[in-house]
Amino acid sequence: MTEPFDAVDLIVRKRDGGALETDQIAWLVDAFTRGAVADEQMSAWAMAVLLRGMDRREIRDLTLAMIDSGERMSFAGLGRPTVDKHSTGGVGDKITLPLAPLVASFGVAVPQLSGRGLGHTGGTLDKLEAIPGWRADLTPDAMRDQLREIGAVICAAGAGLAPADKRLYALRDITGTVESIPLIASSIMSKKIAEGTGALLLDVKFGSGAFMQRFEQAEELARTMVDLGTDAGVMTVALLTGMSVPLGLAVGNAVEVTESVEVLAGGGPSDVVELTVAIAREMLALAGLPDADPEAALADGRAMDTWRRMIAAQGGDPDAPLPAPAETEVVRAAADGVLVGVEAKAVGVASWRLGAGRARQGEPVQAAAGILLHAKPGDTVRAGQVLATLQTDEAARIPRALAALQGAHRMAPPGTAYTPEPLIAARIPAV
Amino acid sequence: MTEPFDAVDLIVRKRDGGALETDQIAWLVDAFTRGAVADEQMSAWAMAVLLRGMDRREIRDLTLAMIDSGERMSFAGLGRPTVDKHSTGGVGDKITLPLAPLVASFGVAVPQLSGRGLGHTGGTLDKLEAIPGWRADLTPDAMRDQLREIGAVICAAGAGLAPADKRLYALRDITGTVESIPLIASSIMSKKIAEGTGALLLDVKFGSGAFMQRFEQAEELARTMVDLGTDAGVMTVALLTGMSVPLGLAVGNAVEVTESVEVLAGGGPSDVVELTVAIAREMLALAGLPDADPEAALADGRAMDTWRRMIAAQGGDPDAPLPAPAETEVVRAAADGVLVGVEAKAVGVASWRLGAGRARQGEPVQAAAGILLHAKPGDTVRAGQVLATLQTDEAARIPRALAALQGAHRMAPPGTAYTPEPLIAARIPAV
Repeated sequence: MTEPFDAVDLIVRKRDGGALETDQIAWLVDAFTRGAVADEQMSAWAMAVLLRGMDRREIRDLTLAMIDSGERMSFAGLGRPTVDKHSTGGVGDKITLPLAPLVASFGVAVPQLSGRGLGHTGGTLDKLEAIPGWRADLTPDAMRDQLREIGAVICAAGAGLAPADKRLYALRDITGTVESIPLIASSIMSKKIAEGTGALLLDVKFGSGAFMQRFEQAEELARTMVDLGTDAGVMTVALLTGMSVPLGLAVGNAVEVTESVEVLAGGGPSDVVELTVAIAREMLALAGLPDADPEAALADGRAMDTWRRMIAAQGGDPDAPLPAPAETEVVRAAADGVLVGVEAKAVGVASWRLGAGRARQGEPVQAAAGILLHAKPGDTVRAGQVLATLQTDEAARIPRALAALQGAHRMAPPGTAYTPEPLIAARIPAV
Repeated sequence: MTEPFDAVDLIVRKRDGGALETDQIAWLVDAFTRGAVADEQMSAWAMAVLLRGMDRREIRDLTLAMIDSGERMSFAGLGRPTVDKHSTGGVGDKITLPLAPLVASFGVAVPQLSGRGLGHTGGTLDKLEAIPGWRADLTPDAMRDQLREIGAVICAAGAGLAPADKRLYALRDITGTVESIPLIASSIMSKKIAEGTGALLLDVKFGSGAFMQRFEQAEELARTMVDLGTDAGVMTVALLTGMSVPLGLAVGNAVEVTESVEVLAGGGPSDVVELTVAIAREMLALAGLPDADPEAALADGRAMDTWRRMIAAQGGDPDAPLPAPAETEVVRAAADGVLVGVEAKAVGVASWRLGAGRARQGEPVQAAAGILLHAKPGDTVRAGQVLATLQTDEAARIPRALAALQGAHRMAPPGTAYTPEPLIAARIPAV
């Protein structure tokens, strides 16, 4: 087969600051999928994209090319509006767990295709797998039936969605080309658009525990993704939310399920409740229900009922006790004072080292591993007070986790005033 | 084995505009050679280097790391000073052929490790292989003996010199990362320094037929290489020479040998003679013979005598007739006028398409293929006059060669004054 383009020409064009044409991008992704463009070439191209950027039309073309590399799903005919949510990932970010049943309790379909964790941010599937019997893998038919009957499903994305993106991401991971807004945006949105959702709420995080450290970067990423969703006919709204402190008091797997169930029971940490409710409102509005009251559904047990049905439908026992850790260790305050910071990244790394996360794809995680925080910024603490409990099945993991937590709790003198940053920093509406 | 660095960290550091430390560069090249750094990673790093650059210390470290990936030769104990010459490549650039025996005829050792052609520039070894019986491959001992006895040797570089550079170049060739001055300079100089020459003359070409189109780029490359040679203790001088018009009247393989022999016989085209003599003077000065007279050695047959001994020592018959082409075609002037330009790149591509060059490493070339020019810029020509003769063994190659030559001969009205550019535009002395 004669190829219509030469990979080197396209790499050089991007390298020199030019824009690739629609047919050039389509060919590049297709040829990469077929193996006619080598991994080495795609790696050099990704670096050129990272350093030279892409314009809005190129990002859209790349996203569509990624979608075209695989299959597309459709949720038409469910009899319910569908709304999905995507978070760029943070420490203690279990929002999907209470959110999906909460939104579904209003008759909306929430098809949450989720992933496993890598590095210091946890994975939604890893957390739910702490529930005895629960299965992440559903056939498309089973997923569809569950959406029709219960409304909420949280399951593993099949390999068929945007396979070119999967291959490109594996290259980016080893070539220092992850941190490119065009590549991140097209990677996330290609999967979400291929999944066939009707609307999408993006939770784009910034701060030390987030992928994007600076607000401006996160905002640019959010705008790029809202544009992409809009261009593809998916109503998309983004919230920019802070991630310098872990969300809630639990970081890990089973501990995050427990905290999610507390929220579904009408309790739970205020920041988790605030973000769950705010995102639920946005999703319900996208589904045509701007007046729905998610707080009421948490208070009166409707969300909890949907959660129990959702877990049971995927083989899980919502009443089974969750795995408990074999070993625990505590971190205590060294002096009296006001806690003014808990570094999200440090807590995420410590939880990972305790066994809650993995360094490489395919490694197992420990269901019981993680960290419970006993104080949050703004709290006054006394010398010797327990600030955090570390949980793991392997005592040998504790020293490196403690090392990661060194300096994570930032203290100020007693009486210091503390004003928290707002959790939701900005909203980017559908355009 | 635990690696002291992580490839992704080093790629990211360069990507973000930082400089790598000496030990980081040494590790990167060594780990790449061992396979511990993947080709994909080296490709992304090369793109980051192309777009972010390297400082002088980094380029030196990279060059030394390339040298350390293989063996080093030494010509100590020959009883002669050694001087080498490197050209960045041009169309009709056969200077090495008369130059090596010319300089050697003064008692200087000239170890010319040469390559084969790729694309539109010819290869020195491809040209000499047009001589019946001549062999490019010599053992190190045979090379050394020939240098001691005759002084001149033109042979293939062994695979043992800077093997990391060879692997990196193969990646750069397919990833759009060839045109990086730090990577070009370290690639050339690592091989020249590893070869163990005492001094080095660089012929850095600019213009349409050269790798570097603009003088400023060529000058930067030349300065970078002179710095590298100096830092490594090799006395290095660079000449910047024009390559918008082919050198001489012959472009190809056997035809360039014939033209070289004309120069050695005291004749030949004036530009080839001018450049050969100028480079010879520089090399003789580097060898401690500033008063040597290369023009005299061309006129009195000393250079020719060394040529005949050099060719014979490598199995060649200096008196054998060279291969003649099976097919020829001519290009004629369309109108009366003054020839003001002969596009070097176009002539190089045409010669390549006639069979004198190759598109991929390892392909055979035709000894008899090439182009003879019958007019040079400044000549007054008449309508119908033959401007060029195309030679090939395969008539089917002629149409695409003629297509490449379309517009290559630029004409001005009769009587137009023509002032040639100086062939040698600048000299960059050893620092």
